[in-house]
Amino acid sequence: MNIAVELTTAPKAKPDQENLGFGNYFTDHMFIMDYTEGKGWHDPRIVPYQPLVLDPATMVFHYGQEMFEGLKAYKTADGNVQMFRPEKNIQRTNVTNERICIPSVDEADALQAIVKLIQVDKDWVPDAPGTSLYVRPFIIATDPFLGVRPSFTYKFIVILSPVGAYYKEGLNPTKIYVETEFVRAVPGGIGYAKTGANYVASLKSQMKAKEKGYSQVLWLDGLERKYVEEVGTSNVFFKIKGEVVTPSLQGSILPGVTRDSVIQLLQSWGIPVMERRITIDEVFEAAQNGDLEEAFATGTAAVISPIGEFNWEERIASINGGKIGELSRKVYDTISGIQRGTIEDAFGWTVKVE
Amino acid sequence: MNIAVELTTAPKAKPDQENLGFGNYFTDHMFIMDYTEGKGWHDPRIVPYQPLVLDPATMVFHYGQEMFEGLKAYKTADGNVQMFRPEKNIQRTNVTNERICIPSVDEADALQAIVKLIQVDKDWVPDAPGTSLYVRPFIIATDPFLGVRPSFTYKFIVILSPVGAYYKEGLNPTKIYVETEFVRAVPGGIGYAKTGANYVASLKSQMKAKEKGYSQVLWLDGLERKYVEEVGTSNVFFKIKGEVVTPSLQGSILPGVTRDSVIQLLQSWGIPVMERRITIDEVFEAAQNGDLEEAFATGTAAVISPIGEFNWEERIASINGGKIGELSRKVYDTISGIQRGTIEDAFGWTVKVE
Ligand SMILES: Cc1ncc(COP(=O)(O)O)c(C=O)c1O
Ligand SMILES: Cc1ncc(COP(=O)(O)O)c(C=O)c1O
Repeated sequence: MNIAVELTTAPKAKPDQENLGFGNYFTDHMFIMDYTEGKGWHDPRIVPYQPLVLDPATMVFHYGQEMFEGLKAYKTADGNVQMFRPEKNIQRTNVTNERICIPSVDEADALQAIVKLIQVDKDWVPDAPGTSLYVRPFIIATDPFLGVRPSFTYKFIVILSPVGAYYKEGLNPTKIYVETEFVRAVPGGIGYAKTGANYVASLKSQMKAKEKGYSQVLWLDGLERKYVEEVGTSNVFFKIKGEVVTPSLQGSILPGVTRDSVIQLLQSWGIPVMERRITIDEVFEAAQNGDLEEAFATGTAAVISPIGEFNWEERIASINGGKIGELSRKVYDTISGIQRGTIEDAFGWTVKVE
Repeated sequence: MNIAVELTTAPKAKPDQENLGFGNYFTDHMFIMDYTEGKGWHDPRIVPYQPLVLDPATMVFHYGQEMFEGLKAYKTADGNVQMFRPEKNIQRTNVTNERICIPSVDEADALQAIVKLIQVDKDWVPDAPGTSLYVRPFIIATDPFLGVRPSFTYKFIVILSPVGAYYKEGLNPTKIYVETEFVRAVPGGIGYAKTGANYVASLKSQMKAKEKGYSQVLWLDGLERKYVEEVGTSNVFFKIKGEVVTPSLQGSILPGVTRDSVIQLLQSWGIPVMERRITIDEVFEAAQNGDLEEAFATGTAAVISPIGEFNWEERIASINGGKIGELSRKVYDTISGIQRGTIEDAFGWTVKVE
């Protein structure tokens, strides 16, 4: 793929690396490529970061035909930049696309687009401890048309955001609210796809949890409200009597790249990992018996987020006295180390940029 | 509310009224109003129809926080313009908003915005038989931010589209495919809200039905895949042994304005209407026994869309020999007549523009 490059003539000032937060700042350039029915994806280009100019009838504003991905690039000690398993995000892009009738993207082209954009904006990759460059590919439906059908035109866009350290004050376990009123996804639905629909559906529950003093929600299955699914925008793991359990992929949860990495890592350490259905009852019973040794959420943003407490209809399960567990810590240190190049990448997970 | 008006200096040519189709053409102006946290809705204005200029990080592109409504205005024989039950759409706007964490709009202000915009673009209301002006209010989340949370800023926009006659060749009954693989909505979800998420979730099923030669999908409930919910973007009614049945509102189907109007109309005629759960089994049994006299879908686009056939896992239910039923026809004629001012509006459903 031949990517045209138009460099900015007005580079922005770089933000303070100590106060980046998440998703607030964007780099000098963006990647865009258009899709037209009958013509395929065309006109791949890197241009100065700029607003999109869209007819108000553009389908994405009305019918939610949109998808996104999220991955990170890290500056290593030797000054290089590397990404973590970008091919997994690109594969997932096409899984999402298939479910919501967006044409698939060529995987090699998508990877090339991301690599080239990071190269162009290489100076934007932060290097303060814990910081990284968040990569956000997304696709929107662009027909200016009000009927309900898949669009005939799309834009594939990549933007980059330097993001701050997730854990400034160390890995503090979070308190999680078990959602029993609202449902995020069901079998036959779109829960496994990374599309806006799943996130808008989660907002109200998230706000409710926040008001009650909880940092995130644990979703139960939509059919019986019994089986554990995900925690907010993360997958979830439990360590019960030395064994690790994570909900199996039934079509209603997102197959996380971090989830997959954690499973492989634990297996390489000889720790048994079960992907199976697990009820919230089982979690609370294990907590009561003292068998629930650790619980943590996994995702690109935080890698590992240890869980200190669950609230399930005002019953409280406290985990490891609210302190981070040994295994959670070890998994976090290892994956972050591989991502940042301080631990050898025995899995071939990292992809160098240039 | 004081609406600033900036008129276009370059009015567009009006499209051919015989070939309008649906949602293809837009008028010369649009209404916009902004929301800012702490300030509320502000700066209501009518401006020339123009593209939206939005940062690529704008939340609506990523997390689907968007809602829309759809209603129609009609030219009456005396040259006036009238809308059909706009206050119902505005009430539903706030029901949707509440579910997806969009701040509510003032109902009187929203109505004023719609009325004023139609006044400005009055010449765009078509008058060929069966044509109308489709009114599309919608709200999008506009924070340029990549974290998952409700936006702090929004735009409320109204655009207008002259649309063609739905039934050029008369009311032809449609063939409907009963969806048993994919699910649209479940209790605890967002099925009752008019937000993009529900439409993107339906695309794949809609395409499958089309490929099989069916014009729309009948959705079953997501829990047991047993109870009838909706037909495509319409509500559904069955006439069984002289009684009319429509699925009750359980939170997973959209409470249609047309649905409500049909219920009131039938009741005014002394025809029993039951809002209750109805299984697809019951529908097929009634069809087999010859008890299923009519079936029709209801919605703003077509008012009434008679159903001639259901396909449920390759079992076929044929209705009224594939011909439109007497009651369907009478309901269609009455509601369209009220909308177009040829039948007296005993219900107070119409709202004059000016
Ligand atoms: C709903 C949901 N679940 C799980 C995850 C974790 O996935 P990953 O590890 O690929 O970031 C994410 C975030 O990407 C998500 O949005
Ligand atoms: C999912 C869905 N159901 C039902 C309807 C019918 O509602 P109304 O009669 O208000 O147009 C619509 C269309 O608005 C819809 O989108």
